[in-house]
Amino acid sequence: MSIHNYVDALCAQTRRGAKALRALSIQSRNQALLRLAELLRSETPSILEANATDLQNAQQSGISSAMLDRLTLTPDRIESMAKGVEEIANFADPLNQVLESKTRPNGLQIDKISVPIGSILFIYEARPNVTIDGAALCLKSGNAVILRGGKESASSSQRLVELCQQALAEFKIEQNAVQLVESADREIVNALLKRDDALQLVIPRGGEGLIRSVTENSRIPVIKHYKGVCHIYVDQSARPEIVSPILINAKVQRPGVCNAVETILFDQNLDQSLILDWIKDLQAQGVTVIGDAKTRSIAEQIQEATPEDWDTEYLDLRVSIRLVDGVKEAIDHIDRHSSGHTESILAESLDAQNAFLTQIDSASLMVNASTRFADGGQYGLGAEVGISTDRLHARGPMGVESLCTYKWIVRGTGQIRA
Amino acid sequence: MSIHNYVDALCAQTRRGAKALRALSIQSRNQALLRLAELLRSETPSILEANATDLQNAQQSGISSAMLDRLTLTPDRIESMAKGVEEIANFADPLNQVLESKTRPNGLQIDKISVPIGSILFIYEARPNVTIDGAALCLKSGNAVILRGGKESASSSQRLVELCQQALAEFKIEQNAVQLVESADREIVNALLKRDDALQLVIPRGGEGLIRSVTENSRIPVIKHYKGVCHIYVDQSARPEIVSPILINAKVQRPGVCNAVETILFDQNLDQSLILDWIKDLQAQGVTVIGDAKTRSIAEQIQEATPEDWDTEYLDLRVSIRLVDGVKEAIDHIDRHSSGHTESILAESLDAQNAFLTQIDSASLMVNASTRFADGGQYGLGAEVGISTDRLHARGPMGVESLCTYKWIVRGTGQIRA
Repeated sequence: MSIHNYVDALCAQTRRGAKALRALSIQSRNQALLRLAELLRSETPSILEANATDLQNAQQSGISSAMLDRLTLTPDRIESMAKGVEEIANFADPLNQVLESKTRPNGLQIDKISVPIGSILFIYEARPNVTIDGAALCLKSGNAVILRGGKESASSSQRLVELCQQALAEFKIEQNAVQLVESADREIVNALLKRDDALQLVIPRGGEGLIRSVTENSRIPVIKHYKGVCHIYVDQSARPEIVSPILINAKVQRPGVCNAVETILFDQNLDQSLILDWIKDLQAQGVTVIGDAKTRSIAEQIQEATPEDWDTEYLDLRVSIRLVDGVKEAIDHIDRHSSGHTESILAESLDAQNAFLTQIDSASLMVNASTRFADGGQYGLGAEVGISTDRLHARGPMGVESLCTYKWIVRGTGQIRA
Repeated sequence: MSIHNYVDALCAQTRRGAKALRALSIQSRNQALLRLAELLRSETPSILEANATDLQNAQQSGISSAMLDRLTLTPDRIESMAKGVEEIANFADPLNQVLESKTRPNGLQIDKISVPIGSILFIYEARPNVTIDGAALCLKSGNAVILRGGKESASSSQRLVELCQQALAEFKIEQNAVQLVESADREIVNALLKRDDALQLVIPRGGEGLIRSVTENSRIPVIKHYKGVCHIYVDQSARPEIVSPILINAKVQRPGVCNAVETILFDQNLDQSLILDWIKDLQAQGVTVIGDAKTRSIAEQIQEATPEDWDTEYLDLRVSIRLVDGVKEAIDHIDRHSSGHTESILAESLDAQNAFLTQIDSASLMVNASTRFADGGQYGLGAEVGISTDRLHARGPMGVESLCTYKWIVRGTGQIRA
């Protein structure tokens, strides 16, 4: 089949899928989700078999051990996927919620109601569990989905999507509501990105290059998940005992994620001995600390930070440190170098807190807490669709309600406009 | 100045403007708005003078009388603009609203707060009043704005933007928070559309060609205002006395707007004599009625509708009529031909109403009311930014809160993530 015909077929099917899901009751959506969880458990052997094919191919082509780990399924990991789907089934219905309601002077009753977005193109890395996450979150929110996972997970994803389609078919739901792009051909994605007649949203997850290429080629709105260059500013008024635990948690607990801290700004009016202790605490955890000239005048043994360091997401046990003259200079630094993801201030001074919270324009701003909390689960949003670095529609951690839009329902008794 | 340098300067200034507005209190924003209203009144002579230049140029280049009318300012129209700005000043603050608030089991206090989007590029027709609307709505919502009006209104828009900047400067607010693109060169707009580092949202209003070109060239999210191919379906269960007034209101009151009806679907199970009466009522108002074969078997004198008619926004005293077999066939027709703007069902049957409301995917769905009500003012949203035909961020009539996004504020006492 030509790319053109293949993409046409995907689009026609996703339109049918979206139309079918749009009118589906929450009971039907949840039934299909619970059946999917059952199938994941009963079909564990065939899922592992498909995964073995992927792993064999991956080892031959020599991918990194981190990628190999994310690609690997085990009975335990499949059980977690099943539990995840059951959790999603237990969420409140994000659809048909009355977001606003009013009666106008002419008697018109106006309600703003949450509805599905339509059809979503979800592009992600070679992580089989994300296939199930994506399908389940879209089904819960009444959206059809076209999944496009990393090519290394082709065989696992195909088996998992078959199970999604089986669960739908058993309840007579249009099974093409969940589809998989089975080819790794980039041209298919590029052709899909032009199909704003059939697709209403693209969510790309992965490297910055992929996200930029999707954004530049897409006629469909894109919600981006870019990097996090997160900052912690330690004000003179900070309670000393909370500083080291938060810095260590934000840097060391999981350095490879977007909400880990990359730059620490210390108020130069703090006791030098405190700053030195905190630096040593980080180093004791295996963190490579680099700093600006002022920092190095206190901690001579550390390396000098280059101008590039202030814009770098290390994703590693590495942190850059700068001394600033109070909250104003901290805000200026963050304004210039932040990627707008998450920043935290450690301060007891309400003035410093308020300046930080009102003048910095990032998706998440924290007071006296670790940046690692910027996460859908931690915000109580249930399963996380991702962490948006965009400003429109969804910003920061995205829950399942981020996969909804709304429509206006106007009820009258024969009104005409004057 | 080269285009590149000009666009660079616009972007640098709008960034400064956005940063200044972000931290501005509602008192300051309202003060500047009220001063703008005063200036519009006291500077009416100089505004009219600038407008006279535009009118002279327009008449020489021979624009349509409708365009000439929209371009023309009078003392009354300037007074309306001033009143409009005062109304916007009287709105509740859309910023700093707590949209969600919760305390997590670990004691973290999580608030979702409305904040400005940042800098907005607003592209619109040669309508001087829209210059003031756009500037005032953006200022109210704390957004910097770059205005780009139709070239025929260049002189009027320039004078109006000078007054906006004067009002800002008098309160020591960064006056470049409101800027005007002073050249009609399309390349400037195209260059701005690539500047997602400085601009966060584009709102194009105007012809479909302009909107498509903006969407295809933009790296910045665009909220589109496309056409309205709006439908009214008259069910067998409709109360006959409300039908004709609603059809006439929806078609005749203002045929040139996007929420006017273009296609009427009559249930073929209705009395033929009723259908014939309603068609005659429309004709008596000067409406040209065309129809499908079934309609013409009742009303022989009307012209046949072509396949293109069902997808056409007439913006004129013209309507296409089709007979359908109940609500299901009406939904199918609308699903194929609607532009997703607004549809109305006239029915007493709750089953028919519910099928219509749940299965049709348009921004506004009405029951027993004229499609003409799809409007920000009619929905009680205050001044209208426009009517979005997009699904994300804003859908249907957009009020000033559509110019806001949100951020997450997380307050702790030293929490770290487990």
